[in-house]
Amino acid sequence: MTTPRFSRTEIVDTASLAAATETVSKDHSIHQPALIVGTGLLGTSIGLGLRAAGIDVLLTDPSPSAQAVAEDIGAGLGLRAGDEPGTVVVAAPPDVTGAEIIKALLRWPQAVVLDIASVKVSIATEIQRAVDHGQLSADDALRYIGTHPMSGRERSGPVAARGELFTAAPWVLCPADSTPQCVVDTASDVARLLGATIYQMSAAEHDAAVAQISHLPQIAASLLASRLQDTSVQALQLAGNGLRDTTRIAASDASLWVQILSANAEKILPELHGMKADLDRLINTLQAPYESGSRLDVAQLIDEGNRGQARIPGKHGGPAQAFALVTVLVDDTPGAIVAALQAVADAGVNVEDLGMEHSSGYQVGMLEISVVPGHKQHLVDSLTDLGWKVL
Amino acid sequence: MTTPRFSRTEIVDTASLAAATETVSKDHSIHQPALIVGTGLLGTSIGLGLRAAGIDVLLTDPSPSAQAVAEDIGAGLGLRAGDEPGTVVVAAPPDVTGAEIIKALLRWPQAVVLDIASVKVSIATEIQRAVDHGQLSADDALRYIGTHPMSGRERSGPVAARGELFTAAPWVLCPADSTPQCVVDTASDVARLLGATIYQMSAAEHDAAVAQISHLPQIAASLLASRLQDTSVQALQLAGNGLRDTTRIAASDASLWVQILSANAEKILPELHGMKADLDRLINTLQAPYESGSRLDVAQLIDEGNRGQARIPGKHGGPAQAFALVTVLVDDTPGAIVAALQAVADAGVNVEDLGMEHSSGYQVGMLEISVVPGHKQHLVDSLTDLGWKVL
Repeated sequence: MTTPRFSRTEIVDTASLAAATETVSKDHSIHQPALIVGTGLLGTSIGLGLRAAGIDVLLTDPSPSAQAVAEDIGAGLGLRAGDEPGTVVVAAPPDVTGAEIIKALLRWPQAVVLDIASVKVSIATEIQRAVDHGQLSADDALRYIGTHPMSGRERSGPVAARGELFTAAPWVLCPADSTPQCVVDTASDVARLLGATIYQMSAAEHDAAVAQISHLPQIAASLLASRLQDTSVQALQLAGNGLRDTTRIAASDASLWVQILSANAEKILPELHGMKADLDRLINTLQAPYESGSRLDVAQLIDEGNRGQARIPGKHGGPAQAFALVTVLVDDTPGAIVAALQAVADAGVNVEDLGMEHSSGYQVGMLEISVVPGHKQHLVDSLTDLGWKVL
Repeated sequence: MTTPRFSRTEIVDTASLAAATETVSKDHSIHQPALIVGTGLLGTSIGLGLRAAGIDVLLTDPSPSAQAVAEDIGAGLGLRAGDEPGTVVVAAPPDVTGAEIIKALLRWPQAVVLDIASVKVSIATEIQRAVDHGQLSADDALRYIGTHPMSGRERSGPVAARGELFTAAPWVLCPADSTPQCVVDTASDVARLLGATIYQMSAAEHDAAVAQISHLPQIAASLLASRLQDTSVQALQLAGNGLRDTTRIAASDASLWVQILSANAEKILPELHGMKADLDRLINTLQAPYESGSRLDVAQLIDEGNRGQARIPGKHGGPAQAFALVTVLVDDTPGAIVAALQAVADAGVNVEDLGMEHSSGYQVGMLEISVVPGHKQHLVDSLTDLGWKVL
């Protein structure tokens, strides 16, 4: 099957995407064309975003159909023999990322090469091993920098790709001590042009961080959801938002997570041992819950959870802030939520966070509006005056 | 301090509450006055809701100030010597619920007595023990029925109370085989007048159900959040909604949960053993992640989580449904969310679920709108035509 090749001007719909990045400087140090290796959700989204920022983008993927879709939606042009990318973004599955980086460093001896896999030490180690074995020169390895955009989407494939996928998401850069500044600048410019918030740390710091804030939550959610395999339908009918929230990410892709957990096993294991020690202690305590000391022990476990939870930063990376919650009863019709939020806007109150709580059996919902505590009473009064049921 | 006694007509603001229950039949078998024992959030909310439904309500609480607040906001009148409640709702902390039920059964030999504690077997056992010890007659014990309203609020105290707290929430009734139908009917009418969805099961079935769908999620969230006590601030800055969702309920009240977990230890322990076995297996596997069989083992763990998660019912107790997600980029201003949802309503599309995703460093948010899959493309087209950034 031959994929039609469009001219660049035909494909790039910069008008529809430029607004998202209009406050971002278009100056950059990205050597063009940029090549995206791997046209899954992330690779295709990077292609779309970079083209919207005016960068020439080339694409390659082992799956001809995935590559064709990415080309068709305007993420870039297919790589051809003789093309010489100045920047290579390896967006392959974690398992093959190391090999693709080495291949790119060897094939294009001028290109800056970055990857976007969600573990960093194992990939850096793989590249060092290639240097140690004489497969790659130490100079060539200097052109590599590991990065990790944390966009948190739970979809996959090029069709779901959007140039704005990285807007306001953290993007971690993990240069080695020896990485030249110009290589760091190129990676930084890629992240910046895509609208991401840039963080810089070592590969080891990154892997320890994601073990705690991403990999451990995935494991906890999977361990918990796994217990529901044989739960009665009757019991599941009683499920509330507590269960739904704690298990949501248990729906994640198994083959991707095998690669991530295997590659970061060293950083995850100490966390699992800590969790196991707490679990053992709790099992022990609950075997004799009314013995002296038992209740203090359970209280300590919950209290330690309180303290850990309170450390998670709030919106926009600010300090964890206890917003005040205003819950409004709404009908389950298209206009009801809008009308309620219009009333909030009319009251001049900003919505800091928004959620809905559902329950079995009724066609109503609770619209949960988080506001800064000082605005709560005014909002409750305003809504009540207008006849809203505020819980 | 003397609490002023209002006449009943002065206190009950039925107009503001009746609308919430206007479709509910006002016929009932509740013997009046109803007495609420314990004026915390739940007891006071029950008082408000029953009064809105036209029931005479009396209140008592060991804390004079808590009782005074509940009286002042109109949840009922203070219990006085000589009052003869026909229905008693024990809304005390789980630890003292059994003793309060026995006291009520003895003191008011005609009254139906129900409790609302979140564990049921341990309380039934306590009452049976009182019968066995001759403290309570078997006939008196027949007037008791255990219930559990699952309102899922994370606040406490009478000030937060609202009569609509139970609207559309599950309310479980746990009659014994010997419980007379008229006692079941009274409890059922209390739940129905408050707008709840009624489920009926044995105390043992209830406790096994909440062990899985409520107590285990609490433990998993606490164990996970507990790991964050020493996490670096740098790492926490990278936290996304996955971490926030999985740890949200870790903020729950420690003293309440000590009582719940201790009282339901027998049903919780098998679940904890199952979780521990999975955790041990994972630790074992990750100690040699690239050995033969290891990756299959990790994949199975994630896959089991996938399967458990998929069994959780969706909105309104319907089958778990994969709604299509439409994500819209919105400014962080009062009117932006309203305007976006107005556009959704104008497109005639119903919002099945609603959420916001935030990220560090940017004053924008992603409004996540769940719709039935067949409406997604129309909505995306409509929003895009209007100039919204749809991710």
